[in-house]
Amino acid sequence: MKLSFTKMQGCGNSYLYFNCFEQSIKNPSELAIRLSEVHFGVGSDGIILICPSEVADAKMRMFNADGSEGKMCGNGIRCVGKYLYDYGMVDGRTEITVETLSGIKHLTLYPENGKVVQVRVDMGAAILTPSEIPCTLPQQAGTDLTVNGVTYAATAVGMGNPHCVLFQEEDVDGLDLEKIGPDFEHHPAFPERVNTEFINVLGDHELKMRVWERGSGETWACGTGTCAAAVAAVLNGHCPKNEDILVHLRGGDLTICYTDETVWMTGPAVTVCEGTIES
Amino acid sequence: MKLSFTKMQGCGNSYLYFNCFEQSIKNPSELAIRLSEVHFGVGSDGIILICPSEVADAKMRMFNADGSEGKMCGNGIRCVGKYLYDYGMVDGRTEITVETLSGIKHLTLYPENGKVVQVRVDMGAAILTPSEIPCTLPQQAGTDLTVNGVTYAATAVGMGNPHCVLFQEEDVDGLDLEKIGPDFEHHPAFPERVNTEFINVLGDHELKMRVWERGSGETWACGTGTCAAAVAAVLNGHCPKNEDILVHLRGGDLTICYTDETVWMTGPAVTVCEGTIES
Repeated sequence: MKLSFTKMQGCGNSYLYFNCFEQSIKNPSELAIRLSEVHFGVGSDGIILICPSEVADAKMRMFNADGSEGKMCGNGIRCVGKYLYDYGMVDGRTEITVETLSGIKHLTLYPENGKVVQVRVDMGAAILTPSEIPCTLPQQAGTDLTVNGVTYAATAVGMGNPHCVLFQEEDVDGLDLEKIGPDFEHHPAFPERVNTEFINVLGDHELKMRVWERGSGETWACGTGTCAAAVAAVLNGHCPKNEDILVHLRGGDLTICYTDETVWMTGPAVTVCEGTIES
Repeated sequence: MKLSFTKMQGCGNSYLYFNCFEQSIKNPSELAIRLSEVHFGVGSDGIILICPSEVADAKMRMFNADGSEGKMCGNGIRCVGKYLYDYGMVDGRTEITVETLSGIKHLTLYPENGKVVQVRVDMGAAILTPSEIPCTLPQQAGTDLTVNGVTYAATAVGMGNPHCVLFQEEDVDGLDLEKIGPDFEHHPAFPERVNTEFINVLGDHELKMRVWERGSGETWACGTGTCAAAVAAVLNGHCPKNEDILVHLRGGDLTICYTDETVWMTGPAVTVCEGTIES
């Protein structure tokens, strides 16, 4: 049996998207493992199923390259928005909702010439209470965190998953993340492990970052990590609240706006190819 | 404009194949660079154009992921054979010819249920004359080659490109190829650099190998390298001439038969997906 997919990417975070309004996927975990590998499969960070929802325009289910199911993906959900609009599944509406394992997310779509090019996502309120992040650090911007004998000024932020944000003078491009990333990931201050963001402040509305994701290592972009970075930049007095902050990631740029109610993330969604595979 | 492609792989060596009987590709180098990258493109080792030929059933032109044009690819040409048969372009014939920058290659196709699963390729005669490989070592199986202070028993073989074959007792799975590969690649005994094969002899008809390719680093499979490995195994008395030798690579198995006239390579060709991209 043939399955149709569309490969899409946001800031280099790429997934194969399957329309499950029209076709059913029996073993999404197996399919994610098989198709994500680049030598024998298509090549991606995983697969995302776009399914009917009782409470939103669609439900997204994401499966990582190792077959595990993820709760939510900031770069992925932007592509879900583009998919729904470009394939005519939301009747041209630009305000839509997507159900995820982290709740219902509101998206604003920005089309050009009939195709969506940018999407804004309401990522939800930032969590600053340590026990909810979870972490054992005090609720304080730039608190001391000693990793491998070096003391960093760390800011812990929860965005559905735990983040440890570090601001530094040294250019993040020069960091050996393979070496230092795992020591943060497994630090006892973060009982569920942690994603770590290494940030340069380029201006009062501009950051540059690299990210080490728990379970994945360095990635080219992390939607929730970019939100956490902007939140931490506000908490540390580097950037203003309620204004757009441009964040440069290895895979592209995202714009974040941190308010008391929520964190807005705006960024690109791009179609790479359409295809079919034998299931 | 939309372009159609088929992603295919042989032993994990994957390319995007474009039918240029039906469509024209203006900038194959640019397309190879753009599509090979896995985050923003489809993900592959490059692209292969299947074009009309005046002297064979088709002509293949291959472009590596860096945009450079290659002469010939043993894993790629098997997929070209499968493509021509599966899409009905050779009227069901199982003996076909493909023009390459290394000359016209003869292929034997082995279909099952109407689709090719294995392909045998006449890879041409092995070159043993040092100046033609090219290398400065004497024409002798297991000749001394000192690399970084360690002396290896090396056998140099030309298969359209230069190869340095090393037999060893130590399990090749444990080798740190990233560390030792470059020192062979740039050794002065090989003026055009060299591909290096690290081999365990598992039996008199069975080898296991890993390969370090010049310009690419370790790859999961190298068609010409597998031929060179089998030729060297015969020259060193490990395996017989004129008989099938099974070679296990990281990406799969190939079967090689070394004769005075030519070297036969038989192996799998697999379709991963069919797709379209905006050019």
